[in-house]
Amino acid sequence: MQLDQSGLEILDKDECRDLLRRATIGRIVFTHQALPAIQPVNFVLSRGDIVIRTSRTSRLATAAADTIVAFEIDEFDTTVRTGWSVVVIGHTQGVTDPSDIAILEALPLVSWAPGERDTFIRIRPELITGRRVHSTIESEATR
Amino acid sequence: MQLDQSGLEILDKDECRDLLRRATIGRIVFTHQALPAIQPVNFVLSRGDIVIRTSRTSRLATAAADTIVAFEIDEFDTTVRTGWSVVVIGHTQGVTDPSDIAILEALPLVSWAPGERDTFIRIRPELITGRRVHSTIESEATR
Repeated sequence: MQLDQSGLEILDKDECRDLLRRATIGRIVFTHQALPAIQPVNFVLSRGDIVIRTSRTSRLATAAADTIVAFEIDEFDTTVRTGWSVVVIGHTQGVTDPSDIAILEALPLVSWAPGERDTFIRIRPELITGRRVHSTIESEATR
Repeated sequence: MQLDQSGLEILDKDECRDLLRRATIGRIVFTHQALPAIQPVNFVLSRGDIVIRTSRTSRLATAAADTIVAFEIDEFDTTVRTGWSVVVIGHTQGVTDPSDIAILEALPLVSWAPGERDTFIRIRPELITGRRVHSTIESEATR
């Protein structure tokens, strides 16, 4: 097990991709009006890309199209203090090609919020990193 | 119930603060090497500030001290597609005053990862927003 300088396990790319495939909720990180912005979104992985569905007038569609963003998924168990996170850095791209849109519309990607979601944003991962924290509760108890 | 343009319920500040008080894990969003960065952290709320504990050599301590960050907490139920998120925008501040450090060291803020965590970072909330998504599963089924 490879640890980083903070004592967290470094997840390899295959494990990160596997966690991305199984997750349904992530957080997209971008800049909005010169301030850091973060928004939870549901997503699917399609041909290695993270695909998000939104409305064309949303903050996401206007601020997070054609830019570098971070995308994060995680899962923590606060009782035993374990968990993992995966962070993707990549370029966003609005999907405009009708045949691409047709493919994406067939994906199991239903927006949770009401209203029309006619815009797809794709993030092509350029950098994928993951970390896992193992419980230190036991070692604390025996100290 | 007040809705935003995406059909999500807008949470008022008291509700956001209440959710922040009860949460233990959040995500801090900052810029690192000109790229968007996000890192899950455990935290406590102390006198209205978000307090994070890290090591002085960590990426957080070097990149996220004395800057504007976003801080996010959320909780989702993927089965019924409901959930909420709260986003805080604020200025980070490394805590250097010994009496402040003594107060913060008495807080129930134990780092999950092994190793010494001798540095406290405080985020003073300047902007707090929250959203809740209500399930649309029922309305879809009856359509």
